Amino acid sequence: MSRRLRLYLTYDGTDFHGWQVQPGLKTIQGEIERVLGEIEGRPVHVDGSGRTDAGVHALEQVASLDLENPIPTLNLRRAMNRLLPPAIRVLRAEEMPADFHARFSARSKCYEYRLWRAEICPPLLYRYVCHHPYPLDIAAMCEAAPHFEGTRDFRALAGADEDGGSDPAQPRTIFSSLLETTGDLLIYRVRGSGFLRYMVRNIVGTLLEVGKGNLTPEDIVRILDSADRRQAGPTAAARGLFLVRVEY
Amino acid sequence: MSRRLRLYLTYDGTDFHGWQVQPGLKTIQGEIERVLGEIEGRPVHVDGSGRTDAGVHALEQVASLDLENPIPTLNLRRAMNRLLPPAIRVLRAEEMPADFHARFSARSKCYEYRLWRAEICPPLLYRYVCHHPYPLDIAAMCEAAPHFEGTRDFRALAGADEDGGSDPAQPRTIFSSLLETTGDLLIYRVRGSGFLRYMVRNIVGTLLEVGKGNLTPEDIVRILDSADRRQAGPTAAARGLFLVRVEY
Repeated sequence: MSRRLRLYLTYDGTDFHGWQVQPGLKTIQGEIERVLGEIEGRPVHVDGSGRTDAGVHALEQVASLDLENPIPTLNLRRAMNRLLPPAIRVLRAEEMPADFHARFSARSKCYEYRLWRAEICPPLLYRYVCHHPYPLDIAAMCEAAPHFEGTRDFRALAGADEDGGSDPAQPRTIFSSLLETTGDLLIYRVRGSGFLRYMVRNIVGTLLEVGKGNLTPEDIVRILDSADRRQAGPTAAARGLFLVRVEY
Repeated sequence: MSRRLRLYLTYDGTDFHGWQVQPGLKTIQGEIERVLGEIEGRPVHVDGSGRTDAGVHALEQVASLDLENPIPTLNLRRAMNRLLPPAIRVLRAEEMPADFHARFSARSKCYEYRLWRAEICPPLLYRYVCHHPYPLDIAAMCEAAPHFEGTRDFRALAGADEDGGSDPAQPRTIFSSLLETTGDLLIYRVRGSGFLRYMVRNIVGTLLEVGKGNLTPEDIVRILDSADRRQAGPTAAARGLFLVRVEY
């Protein structure tokens, strides 16, 4: 009799080729499935709430899986943390009803993108921020950020290599989209019902174009309406992006 | 006509074999000398305020050197930061009198050692703390910490492979030695006139023995008086140690 479990995970994505299993490459999903396989004694498949790309971090990612092993959840967490590399930690393991699925049951996700604005990027921050030591019109960026809110097709912000796992034309809702400054750190926070691949990094790339004066806050809605990826800004670097929370 | 310069440096020591140049290994001094050599067009030697061991970090390390190149200090900093890996940054470059020497002119140094006490060590902290998720008598450790203060021979805390660059029997002064807790973080801060190799990590290892109940705060002075390395605790892991400041 197998049990459905939910794992809350956190990871430093720097040294991984993203979430998804890829033959011969070190990935988060691959590491999780490897240690669960050791515990279960046979291959175990996990579903993430969604992928994170190479170099993207997670303060809290969620995965679901089935296990035959009756190991208590607290012991499972400890056993996994002993077997996983220190860059990946299991924060919590929970019993769930059989119909729980990390991806299909998710109602919303929160991401954070961190930009470092000072000339010198402290070595201890380097892996966790995008370093942008050039002038930016922060007021215009703050004004532009909420223009991404709403329910619509976000194809203008889809990754070039969107792979059909989800339909880019399907409407998604961005509940909140905000930019905050804390000293030399500029933090973009977004909460939405779902995100296309590279979507948060493309929003940040577009906000940077606003900050540089190449776009105005008013251009945002025009770009979204165009449904044309070439209208939006470039994809911001992976290292600044954190999956913060998945809500069910 | 050469100029004497002072560099203030910061680095993440994780991926380096310590400060000192070693043939075939990536070291902090080696990287600094490499980029200065590119700028100067001939080999440049730098003197650090002291070595940091493999895996030890610096919030502020100081180096001195002579340069023929008349490049302004601000441009030198920028040029170096363009050529250095992101794990090493030049915070400041300054003109100094010809008799300034990063090591011999130093009056005192401050170090910090960070211990993480919660069961789970966040992946983003892992490179910068020593993870110790076991019970500790923090009150006893806080009481013991100031017992390291004073002027004396600190041979009991010398590294086993002290290499004669400095005489371990020569008296040093510890001006302050304090332990502080901030949430799950335990921070040991020490300021002294000079330190033997591994000395701070050996102090921390000894404080951990106090925390585990294997030593009492009163044992500290006895251990120091013994001048016997075997009396003190083991050497704590490098990853938790930061050189914080060098004072002149």
